[in-house]
Amino acid sequence: MKINKFFHKTNSINLSKIFKILNLKFNLKDIKINDIKDLHNASSKDLSFMNSIKYLDLLKKTKSKYIVTNLKYKKLVSKYGKPIIVSNVLKSVADITLLFYPYSLDDTFDINASYPNIKKFKNVKFGKHVLLGKNVNIGKNTIIGHNTIIESNVKIGSNCQIGNNVILKFTEIGENVKILDGAVVGKKGFGFFPNDKYNQRYPHIGMVLIGNNSEIGCNSTIDRGSLSNTIIGKNTFIDNQVHIAHNVKIGSNCIITAQVGFAGSSVVGSKVQIGGQAGISGHLKVGNNVQIGGGSGVIKNIPDNCKVMGYPAKDFRKFLKENK
Amino acid sequence: MKINKFFHKTNSINLSKIFKILNLKFNLKDIKINDIKDLHNASSKDLSFMNSIKYLDLLKKTKSKYIVTNLKYKKLVSKYGKPIIVSNVLKSVADITLLFYPYSLDDTFDINASYPNIKKFKNVKFGKHVLLGKNVNIGKNTIIGHNTIIESNVKIGSNCQIGNNVILKFTEIGENVKILDGAVVGKKGFGFFPNDKYNQRYPHIGMVLIGNNSEIGCNSTIDRGSLSNTIIGKNTFIDNQVHIAHNVKIGSNCIITAQVGFAGSSVVGSKVQIGGQAGISGHLKVGNNVQIGGGSGVIKNIPDNCKVMGYPAKDFRKFLKENK
Amino acid sequence: MKINKFFHKTNSINLSKIFKILNLKFNLKDIKINDIKDLHNASSKDLSFMNSIKYLDLLKKTKSKYIVTNLKYKKLVSKYGKPIIVSNVLKSVADITLLFYPYSLDDTFDINASYPNIKKFKNVKFGKHVLLGKNVNIGKNTIIGHNTIIESNVKIGSNCQIGNNVILKFTEIGENVKILDGAVVGKKGFGFFPNDKYNQRYPHIGMVLIGNNSEIGCNSTIDRGSLSNTIIGKNTFIDNQVHIAHNVKIGSNCIITAQVGFAGSSVVGSKVQIGGQAGISGHLKVGNNVQIGGGSGVIKNIPDNCKVMGYPAKDFRKFLKENK
Repeated sequence: MKINKFFHKTNSINLSKIFKILNLKFNLKDIKINDIKDLHNASSKDLSFMNSIKYLDLLKKTKSKYIVTNLKYKKLVSKYGKPIIVSNVLKSVADITLLFYPYSLDDTFDINASYPNIKKFKNVKFGKHVLLGKNVNIGKNTIIGHNTIIESNVKIGSNCQIGNNVILKFTEIGENVKILDGAVVGKKGFGFFPNDKYNQRYPHIGMVLIGNNSEIGCNSTIDRGSLSNTIIGKNTFIDNQVHIAHNVKIGSNCIITAQVGFAGSSVVGSKVQIGGQAGISGHLKVGNNVQIGGGSGVIKNIPDNCKVMGYPAKDFRKFLKENK
Repeated sequence: MKINKFFHKTNSINLSKIFKILNLKFNLKDIKINDIKDLHNASSKDLSFMNSIKYLDLLKKTKSKYIVTNLKYKKLVSKYGKPIIVSNVLKSVADITLLFYPYSLDDTFDINASYPNIKKFKNVKFGKHVLLGKNVNIGKNTIIGHNTIIESNVKIGSNCQIGNNVILKFTEIGENVKILDGAVVGKKGFGFFPNDKYNQRYPHIGMVLIGNNSEIGCNSTIDRGSLSNTIIGKNTFIDNQVHIAHNVKIGSNCIITAQVGFAGSSVVGSKVQIGGQAGISGHLKVGNNVQIGGGSGVIKNIPDNCKVMGYPAKDFRKFLKENK
Repeated sequence: MKINKFFHKTNSINLSKIFKILNLKFNLKDIKINDIKDLHNASSKDLSFMNSIKYLDLLKKTKSKYIVTNLKYKKLVSKYGKPIIVSNVLKSVADITLLFYPYSLDDTFDINASYPNIKKFKNVKFGKHVLLGKNVNIGKNTIIGHNTIIESNVKIGSNCQIGNNVILKFTEIGENVKILDGAVVGKKGFGFFPNDKYNQRYPHIGMVLIGNNSEIGCNSTIDRGSLSNTIIGKNTFIDNQVHIAHNVKIGSNCIITAQVGFAGSSVVGSKVQIGGQAGISGHLKVGNNVQIGGGSGVIKNIPDNCKVMGYPAKDFRKFLKENK
């Protein structure tokens, strides 16, 4: 995971303090914890968490020594690290994230964005009414469309075309990328803890990363990740009115047609083709070279090289046969 | 129903005049009629209408004494009021609405909206290029994003965040509400009488009401009501690219994920969760505590506490069983 | 097909030069070719192409004498003209199109659009921040909403209402048309040749044509055609968040509700009604007076006067019976 320049992180925090905000008794030797990260990205000085058997492989390899989990996985987690037992893993992870990233819930928009200082951006063309936050980085020969808003710390590579009425925040974009009119990239994900009076927002400290040569269609929406990043691979083309939720990772050379939707945290391989209006449920894994027919509803993992269609999605030939 | 400040209403109109525009013979004693309202909201001085047996319960309780209906319901309506028999109930209601609200078809946009007079709005922050109509009311500590347009008479509570490129018209918003980038709220509904040469628009004199602590996602669209209001309850969160048609009423504490669509006039209870891309047909009733799986197509009423999935939506366990 | 004013076309090109860019041996008598067009629109001086048996009827009637095709159709095409045999018809057509229209891949946005010269547009009202390209033609009594961008050579008829935040390019609009807030009309279609490193764009030299009295909903997207035009007929109403891909042709008096999607090149008749969230696959033909239920997935042609529903779409009564 790239270093996060979008959110201020506090220095290391005593493990005892973390236990305190979780309302847990602390009877260990106190140490400094550097950050909270997922099992894959955590270093030996970071806290991590585990709330599903789906992440067993990552648990086995994690460098983290302290892992937030629930009673169900206490024994399992004990084999690989020190379990910190809580009743609601995601809620506790949110609380800890907020401790490390105290401003991570201030997700409003950049009210102070202002007109670009043209001198600072040589070989960049700006349309009318463009607004930039602080410390925006734009590569040469890139053009920025009318009315477009680019918030602080966003990075855009060279030879890009950012269309009109586009909104970019918490995003890093490679070279030769096209973001078409009306797309909104980098908003916080639709993740929160329901509460009768007032839903509690989940911190979203992830970014959106978009690879070289890719294209994002008109009026599409791509949310940034919570603890990991939302990623669009290289040379992946996304059509109009597509929605990509937080933490989704899409590989290279994919073709995703209009009005497709991805729920949170799904991982999609490379050379995947998805027909219009198909939906991909959350936390799934779609392999490489997969073809998903238009209108399909994918609710389980799809191995490499499969062609599926239907709601729920099934083998393509089976779908055709059943629907003769 | 709240008093409508968005549309100019004429004073009371003689019943004989109403009969005249309906091309009906008038042989009753003439009286003044104050307004036209649905069965539920009509007072004893208002006209009302009935065009489906679904509204029998409301008919029994209505205070209205003159009810526009067709031959089919003449006998039934006679038990509770004086039936005014027409061939096309909705068309006649539209004609009468236009009589009471003579400007209700002038649904263009507020070409005269202009930059906010900052002095009038203490403790409100405005982004760049914001345009306001006349008599806009904004509560303290609310922020309004860049390029956002707020038309005349719209009311926004305190502590709200209205994003960038948002359009608000014919709308009242509670406290602590978030409307995210690119959402369009309050446009007239997609209701009209088809006509070979030139479809005739239906007047839409309803508003959009959004309760406290709710959130509306990016690029979502919420249409205002025709004769009643479109309502989003308190603490209901709506994700990106959701469409909510005219007259829809959604309860409190609902969670509605991306790309869901509601057809007109459906009523949804509280604590309802709806997965991505699901669709709810028009004029349906969805109970409380209902869960609707992603991609479902709901075409009939759903009682309280049910969990459904599929197209058409059925019991969730049945759906899973049939699709093993 | 209307004469294309949006893309510069070179003069006629020697057939030998066309063979050269296709890497084909040239052993014919050299002649001048005027343009490349589809079988229906080509004159005797234009090149055309054939890549599917679906176009047999058009082949029989075409005026074109030189037709790009592949080995499979060599014999068939020989009956009606001189076949030019290539391995990838669409790729070769793209290469030839680029030869005739050398700027057809420069599909960025009009960075030089500027504020309207009010004097030039009598009886036209403009909102704030409107930007126009060169040679824009707007009829009397038309109003243009705030922040709207209208690119060069776009033509808008009289009595139209173009909403706020609308983007129009490569488009011609009739009289009394409404384009609602946030719609994006005329972007290039989602057509390209996948390539491991860098997808190759297909030229899109078609326009979007919108007939009199029609309406396009909020945040909808309509892409322009590749070699033919995308067409919306007269008095056709399209709701919010609808997507219409390149080359689609929709007839008159249609009613298309929210979130419907059309894949490329489908042809839809008149008086067609389509329920919310339905999807129409590419290259299909939907007849006149057809009704398509909400949420349907249409994957084959539908004859006149049919009523269908389901995914895949089937006879409506059959759908209801199977789903009792």
